[in-house]
Amino acid sequence: MKELYLSMNSAKKHITVSILGASGYSGAMALRILLRHPAVTVEKVFGTSSVGEKVHTLYPSLRGLTELAYEEYSSDKTENSGIVFLALPAGHAMKVVPDMMKAGKKVIDLSGDFRLKDSNQYKEYYKEAHVSGGLLDSACYGMPEIARGEIINTKLLSNPGCYPTTAIIPLAPLLKNGLIEPEDISISSLSGVSGAGRKASVDLSFAEVDGSVKAYRVGDHQHIPEIESVLSAYSGQNVSVNFVPHLLPAVRGIYSTTFVTPKENIGEAVIADAFQNAFDGEPFVRYLGNEIPELKNVVGSNFIDIGWKFDKRKGKLIVFSAIDNLIKGAAGQAVQNMNIMCGFDEKEALIL
Amino acid sequence: MKELYLSMNSAKKHITVSILGASGYSGAMALRILLRHPAVTVEKVFGTSSVGEKVHTLYPSLRGLTELAYEEYSSDKTENSGIVFLALPAGHAMKVVPDMMKAGKKVIDLSGDFRLKDSNQYKEYYKEAHVSGGLLDSACYGMPEIARGEIINTKLLSNPGCYPTTAIIPLAPLLKNGLIEPEDISISSLSGVSGAGRKASVDLSFAEVDGSVKAYRVGDHQHIPEIESVLSAYSGQNVSVNFVPHLLPAVRGIYSTTFVTPKENIGEAVIADAFQNAFDGEPFVRYLGNEIPELKNVVGSNFIDIGWKFDKRKGKLIVFSAIDNLIKGAAGQAVQNMNIMCGFDEKEALIL
Amino acid sequence: MKELYLSMNSAKKHITVSILGASGYSGAMALRILLRHPAVTVEKVFGTSSVGEKVHTLYPSLRGLTELAYEEYSSDKTENSGIVFLALPAGHAMKVVPDMMKAGKKVIDLSGDFRLKDSNQYKEYYKEAHVSGGLLDSACYGMPEIARGEIINTKLLSNPGCYPTTAIIPLAPLLKNGLIEPEDISISSLSGVSGAGRKASVDLSFAEVDGSVKAYRVGDHQHIPEIESVLSAYSGQNVSVNFVPHLLPAVRGIYSTTFVTPKENIGEAVIADAFQNAFDGEPFVRYLGNEIPELKNVVGSNFIDIGWKFDKRKGKLIVFSAIDNLIKGAAGQAVQNMNIMCGFDEKEALIL
Amino acid sequence: MKELYLSMNSAKKHITVSILGASGYSGAMALRILLRHPAVTVEKVFGTSSVGEKVHTLYPSLRGLTELAYEEYSSDKTENSGIVFLALPAGHAMKVVPDMMKAGKKVIDLSGDFRLKDSNQYKEYYKEAHVSGGLLDSACYGMPEIARGEIINTKLLSNPGCYPTTAIIPLAPLLKNGLIEPEDISISSLSGVSGAGRKASVDLSFAEVDGSVKAYRVGDHQHIPEIESVLSAYSGQNVSVNFVPHLLPAVRGIYSTTFVTPKENIGEAVIADAFQNAFDGEPFVRYLGNEIPELKNVVGSNFIDIGWKFDKRKGKLIVFSAIDNLIKGAAGQAVQNMNIMCGFDEKEALIL
Repeated sequence: MKELYLSMNSAKKHITVSILGASGYSGAMALRILLRHPAVTVEKVFGTSSVGEKVHTLYPSLRGLTELAYEEYSSDKTENSGIVFLALPAGHAMKVVPDMMKAGKKVIDLSGDFRLKDSNQYKEYYKEAHVSGGLLDSACYGMPEIARGEIINTKLLSNPGCYPTTAIIPLAPLLKNGLIEPEDISISSLSGVSGAGRKASVDLSFAEVDGSVKAYRVGDHQHIPEIESVLSAYSGQNVSVNFVPHLLPAVRGIYSTTFVTPKENIGEAVIADAFQNAFDGEPFVRYLGNEIPELKNVVGSNFIDIGWKFDKRKGKLIVFSAIDNLIKGAAGQAVQNMNIMCGFDEKEALIL
Repeated sequence: MKELYLSMNSAKKHITVSILGASGYSGAMALRILLRHPAVTVEKVFGTSSVGEKVHTLYPSLRGLTELAYEEYSSDKTENSGIVFLALPAGHAMKVVPDMMKAGKKVIDLSGDFRLKDSNQYKEYYKEAHVSGGLLDSACYGMPEIARGEIINTKLLSNPGCYPTTAIIPLAPLLKNGLIEPEDISISSLSGVSGAGRKASVDLSFAEVDGSVKAYRVGDHQHIPEIESVLSAYSGQNVSVNFVPHLLPAVRGIYSTTFVTPKENIGEAVIADAFQNAFDGEPFVRYLGNEIPELKNVVGSNFIDIGWKFDKRKGKLIVFSAIDNLIKGAAGQAVQNMNIMCGFDEKEALIL
Repeated sequence: MKELYLSMNSAKKHITVSILGASGYSGAMALRILLRHPAVTVEKVFGTSSVGEKVHTLYPSLRGLTELAYEEYSSDKTENSGIVFLALPAGHAMKVVPDMMKAGKKVIDLSGDFRLKDSNQYKEYYKEAHVSGGLLDSACYGMPEIARGEIINTKLLSNPGCYPTTAIIPLAPLLKNGLIEPEDISISSLSGVSGAGRKASVDLSFAEVDGSVKAYRVGDHQHIPEIESVLSAYSGQNVSVNFVPHLLPAVRGIYSTTFVTPKENIGEAVIADAFQNAFDGEPFVRYLGNEIPELKNVVGSNFIDIGWKFDKRKGKLIVFSAIDNLIKGAAGQAVQNMNIMCGFDEKEALIL
Repeated sequence: MKELYLSMNSAKKHITVSILGASGYSGAMALRILLRHPAVTVEKVFGTSSVGEKVHTLYPSLRGLTELAYEEYSSDKTENSGIVFLALPAGHAMKVVPDMMKAGKKVIDLSGDFRLKDSNQYKEYYKEAHVSGGLLDSACYGMPEIARGEIINTKLLSNPGCYPTTAIIPLAPLLKNGLIEPEDISISSLSGVSGAGRKASVDLSFAEVDGSVKAYRVGDHQHIPEIESVLSAYSGQNVSVNFVPHLLPAVRGIYSTTFVTPKENIGEAVIADAFQNAFDGEPFVRYLGNEIPELKNVVGSNFIDIGWKFDKRKGKLIVFSAIDNLIKGAAGQAVQNMNIMCGFDEKEALIL
């Protein structure tokens, strides 16, 4: 198994990258992973609120691992960076990406700015007009499990959302193979608090969150159109989902329990085959069959664990999926995409 | 509001009770609540594993509130107790209840032993033959919100399960009024760890549970037939549910997110009316309308908080409900039932 | 034991109170407790940031228990209130108390504004000049276990700090009896996050606090002079303490581990006697002798649990104490003081 | 910084190891770390209760990282292993080590069996006679920060306890330089629940631990003689400590707050120099000076973070130290020792 950890052969090529928004949880996680990547040098980290501070001032767990300090972004500072990671709040990437494209950079955007193809839908869910809607079509929705071929050649990679990662990976093969009703999908998801970002808020304080749980943004979460549009495009049919996110009293991870309705005459064997075929060889999908995943097993890793139960009597298939929201749901998937884009071993730096 | 806390007028009558299984979480909670009840004296507490120990040896939080010690149960020790609370593991109540009935006691059973009417179904889900199946018909399923009239006169009260309490109270009015499809109900529930009881188990240890979440017993949980049979009987139709319980990294509480399909032409106003009519005047239902409940608000109380969202476009109504599993989901509901059975104010000792 | 819960005889007299700062955790807890007090009516609740909002908008757990709404404070609104509770941030009470005194109100102040006798010390630790220093002498430090006699007659009661409550109650009898070195006391305390108040702060967010622990404000915490001055005055000698507060990943409670050095020839029996004599009959001290307290046993109660170990070989006595920071450490102790001031049963409304 | 992560040059030599007790938390963590070590092959993992099970059955987070299964130990199965890691409960290592020594294996023992030099003291604290007391003298107490030179040549390495690691590393330079009173040291330590091992116990259940904290084994913990004997030997004087361990509601980590008394005329500068000199160049000590460490920053790493405050007025120096109990406090330190013993880069596989 040693090759999981060390594939120095992939280091023939060496790249230089920068990270915008490295003061947030996802950006800091991207930095942490990239620091261990044998073929990558991180040139600069940018973070508006912490300019001049060493990274370890905000993230003391990184003390001793890097001497980088946060700078204010300007395009000239990333001259040597062939790839730029954007881990900015919604609405910021669309403002800086056009210039980066012109400068010939490759961009890996961890925000939602380039995940939808329809700028009207963007406006509806993100409450802001899209200022570089012309780039939406060329952006590649970077989910390796369904789009590895496109990722290789993209210049603008839109990294999937955390919730959508747990929804799309298991639903994709079921829909693609026509095994389930595409408009009767109910997703109940639980997210750790880091999913809300590093911010000051009474609602996110330990005293309010611990020992509790609550649903939020029912019916209007921006990940609904993301899940629906990606799955519709991938499976060639109109897919519609009911999606209920909940705030879980845990720091990291997303756990999704998805109720779907198999089409008539679809049995367990067909479902098992579809999953098996889809996930066979996938380096970061751990397919558990009829075992039920548990969140802690993926926390700290780039894996998605997937399992399912089919209740024939009730006519419902229930699918379970679990990821670390900051890794497979953000920075890890971003580095996985970078590895694909650069021709590195896809697992490089990601067996954590 | 003072009358919420002190309705001494209800104390005209005074009763004496005993508790079997008072060493478990539900039994100890029943004791805690009964100690504050102005019309109740607790005669004896029984607990096989702790015979001879003061209650506060197991539950130091009760130190100073009672000097009772655990005894080994024998029927002669409850001579003065008109009501006996049973908080025993499944399979034990059915062995002691017949003698108690003969002795003229009233019984409030917190286990699942008398919740199903069909002894075959009992065997299927509880993995044991029912030894007093003849009593199943006479047992009253003690959920005040749907059966207050029957509770008043019962001698054998079967206290509802914790998960079923969160499912049945909000679904009952929807089904009774014919507003939703009775066989397309998907319930995703989260339970705090105390729901598993006070026991030594690696799976329940802090090191395994904290920061995690997992579904369990999908499709074969004993609360499925309870929910289905109670709602079927109450609404006069065949009700079928998909039920997925999860272990939540919290000590107390149950939070249920339920996806149902309104029948054609059913709109928000009709749903709102049904809920409003059902819950109006209910002392322990806090009906939030379109607000979403949060678990912490009910922890430590006998309330159930209920809210809902209707996504017309998707054709799904999503209902949210939250309780404290040990109070409204067990001991609190049991005392509420006792209050009804004894003609006390239903809220007595339950505004915690 | 029933008298613990219901001492209606104390309700001969009936009082009306108001609460300033009822939007914070301590003020809201005071409200919760006072609502259940048979002899108290809460006239008004004030909270600057939530004017016009029902209490249950901020504290949904209180829904159904009160219809009070937050108002902006002005002195004419508390006309009927004989007692005013102040649960304001440091520096606010000293501005409003003089007028309240003139208006003949009794004040119970939960802040630190009147805990020190020396206005210079106040300025040193609270970083602000005291604007009503003339009242410091007349304020009574309201810790029933050491000052019950004075509390009865005070008009300005300064309610003890949460950390000092855990330190002073067990140290007072040791110092008063001259059993330990008064200047070799090291206190390591852990506080739940609610101790920091209800506020938006990255440092208090669940994602930062969960799974962690840290010391803070070592050597300059404002509770140091409070502990020292109260114990010095009480025991008639110069008392000096090393005090290290830590932020605990829990919502409620304070747990203090205190290392003291017994004087020569002081043995276990003398220590045990001193504790026993001091705590005998104290309604809210649960003295455990050589048993070690556990935080959870006091959470939700007004008790302080106290235990100790004496290591003769090492010459150190280690004392353990635990309280609920919002109850015995704030609102509960305040109501206990109110009960004393009003001649009510000291336990009224406080067996929770 | 890349060399932190990849020092392939150290892989010139390649070794094979086995792990006894790999079903416990420390043993499984050793496996996890060794799997990523470029110069190590893990031959076998042993675990009595799980014989025949794949490692990922017990530790699903390791699924996909190893196909090893637990076997029952017999000496012939470790034929190829030059080093054997023992992560067994107390009392087991002393039974198997003599044979391993005879077979020419090097042993790294994570238990307390070889940490004390005095077999009588072993019996007093471990409640069992030592069956291979003759080996105690030859065992090397493997703490790199104080014994790197001896570690290189040892055949029987006794890996330090988790609590002692947090106590000894910061106290060693203070004592060695004669800066503090050697018999006036009070240590208040907090340990995450994983420190108690992977076991079924009501006391360790989430429902009992969450939201709580308690001291335990005050005055008789087996780490007391370990801390005292190691520090006494290292500093050439009689060192005595008061040590109070507490159970923290967190999964991982140890945080120690230590009160010591500087000798007369010792000032801040001298203390700072002693620490600086001791820790300069130490790969896994992050010396923070007057900054206070926070537990979360070391969780998941092999670092110990150390900071301090000196209160001249009170004459007390307070030292803070934090580690991950399973890594720097167990498996990480064990691999660090292995790296030293094998001439590998000391950081190999340990920048996690």
